[in-house]
Amino acid sequence: MTVNFGERRAQLAAILPGVPALLVTRPVNVRYLTGLDSSNAAVLVWADGSATLATDSRYIEMTRGLDIEVVEDRDVVGRLAAQGVGVEATHMTVAAFRRLNGVVPLDPLVEQLRMVKDEHEIELLRTACAISDRAFSDISGSIRPGVSEKDLARILEARMIELGADKPAFDTIVAAGENGAVPHHSPTDRQLRPGDLVTIDFGARYRGYHADMTRTVAVGHAADWQRELYDLVAAAQQAGVEAVKPGAIAGDLDAVSRSIIEAAGHGEDFRHGLGHGVGLEIHEDPFLGPARTGKLEDRVPVTVEPGVYLPGRGGIRIEDTLVARDAGPELLTKTTKELLVL
Amino acid sequence: MTVNFGERRAQLAAILPGVPALLVTRPVNVRYLTGLDSSNAAVLVWADGSATLATDSRYIEMTRGLDIEVVEDRDVVGRLAAQGVGVEATHMTVAAFRRLNGVVPLDPLVEQLRMVKDEHEIELLRTACAISDRAFSDISGSIRPGVSEKDLARILEARMIELGADKPAFDTIVAAGENGAVPHHSPTDRQLRPGDLVTIDFGARYRGYHADMTRTVAVGHAADWQRELYDLVAAAQQAGVEAVKPGAIAGDLDAVSRSIIEAAGHGEDFRHGLGHGVGLEIHEDPFLGPARTGKLEDRVPVTVEPGVYLPGRGGIRIEDTLVARDAGPELLTKTTKELLVL
Repeated sequence: MTVNFGERRAQLAAILPGVPALLVTRPVNVRYLTGLDSSNAAVLVWADGSATLATDSRYIEMTRGLDIEVVEDRDVVGRLAAQGVGVEATHMTVAAFRRLNGVVPLDPLVEQLRMVKDEHEIELLRTACAISDRAFSDISGSIRPGVSEKDLARILEARMIELGADKPAFDTIVAAGENGAVPHHSPTDRQLRPGDLVTIDFGARYRGYHADMTRTVAVGHAADWQRELYDLVAAAQQAGVEAVKPGAIAGDLDAVSRSIIEAAGHGEDFRHGLGHGVGLEIHEDPFLGPARTGKLEDRVPVTVEPGVYLPGRGGIRIEDTLVARDAGPELLTKTTKELLVL
Repeated sequence: MTVNFGERRAQLAAILPGVPALLVTRPVNVRYLTGLDSSNAAVLVWADGSATLATDSRYIEMTRGLDIEVVEDRDVVGRLAAQGVGVEATHMTVAAFRRLNGVVPLDPLVEQLRMVKDEHEIELLRTACAISDRAFSDISGSIRPGVSEKDLARILEARMIELGADKPAFDTIVAAGENGAVPHHSPTDRQLRPGDLVTIDFGARYRGYHADMTRTVAVGHAADWQRELYDLVAAAQQAGVEAVKPGAIAGDLDAVSRSIIEAAGHGEDFRHGLGHGVGLEIHEDPFLGPARTGKLEDRVPVTVEPGVYLPGRGGIRIEDTLVARDAGPELLTKTTKELLVL
């Protein structure tokens, strides 16, 4: 399958809100619209679908073969900006904006297009998730007393890369025992001990597309309170997964999972939104959280990741990446959600 | 050695340009000033050195033990912004700025402070560079015909992680043969062949600090034109390294190396600046390029990385990370710069 970047630019052209053109400067959006993955490029897309890509000398060789007009200039924004064109207000900095005359700050547009994936993109996500599942399975023998959080994270990341990942989709979280109370804990030298719950949040990036999954496992044995809490989060997660479908409102989805956790008296301990879109970015539209108004559509990949965090004691989070489909949610991360006691 | 974050904030307070406080929102600057490494935090630093850190529930546990007042709010900017305070114009987006009343866009201030490293930071860079050197040596047996660019990058990145890196400092570049003409080439399935020059640009990140080094090696044998070009780049690189000292002007440093390459008729083929500062970011102040006016000081780490790129034929780049010192440059990356034929 090849990507038709011209078609993507035509879709953008069709939604320009009363400006003659949009100057796209977010690197991930430039990549989406042109195929060029760089740290300094911009693309100007006109309402008729025509477009010009600017980048500097470091990346110019990478533009050969791209089906778009290319100009070389280190000042990619200055080269392409023109009176009246739209700019990406949630990306462009105040400093860059103040150098330009008469450009129009706009809300995200390319991010809207990126939300619904084509089958090629979903296939890349499927591969990223399959690598993640396989890596977790392959290294599960290393989840045992004495290994440090940091070593476990390293082993898992190295395995994903061996299996073909570009790199980890984000910095792997391994949080053992009381560290599990920190949703975004950075791995330390703390060693796993029998009786720990260990939360492992990780994923592979494959050709630019991100997998995101979390499993919480028990080391050696699990106490009754740990099993009860695990079953609660698992039930909330399962309900959230089943509610993912075209037409669902982000805030309602969040409420499906959250109400289960609240009913058990742990509402205050679920300290983040239910999930988020995933694709060329690890976190992208639609964001699933209380009062979020976005609506799912067919072919929108999201994560569902409720958690309960008890300061001083520990935490549990369970997360899948899945795709909203007319035919029902397609689960991309397939590792069991039974409580693993390792 | 421990880091005195309060002292860093006091240094910032001392250079506030006519505003009562600076609202710092760049994550890497927040980390530098507080120790909190997160994706959503801000710190407001007043002219008397007092400060307040805001972050959301996901990171609040990580703020325990930090020597600073902390408030919890998902809207970290809205919570801390106040009439008349400065904001970081090269980081704050137009959209964020338009939500605020009467804040003052300022040029980079924390970046200025970050340019000169303390000995603790230099020690972390030293370790990052030592890991990089060691990893390159350890995997050099894998640099041989038949291995793909992508596999070589993976092996090198995995080895750095095994040796204690947080992660790779950036996406490793392995560019074989004609691909060497692309300074920022992404590794492909192209296999190394006898007679290739291979450019390997990589580094370890260690506790947030980045190493950056490049070596170009020959596979099997090197043709005369390859050796000649290699010797040219090596001479330019060595001259650049020797010119790194407190007081040197960025543009002059660039000229030291560039004039050697120009004299050999390859000025047009050296298609980027000489180097850049390195620390909590892989690219930071000071940037070394033509007409750059920054001045080195004692304890400023930089890279020196001239290159020559011949479209269709290949390229050569040689890069070290080193520190400007009153006593003479301290080289942190120590792998030989003799042409290795592997």
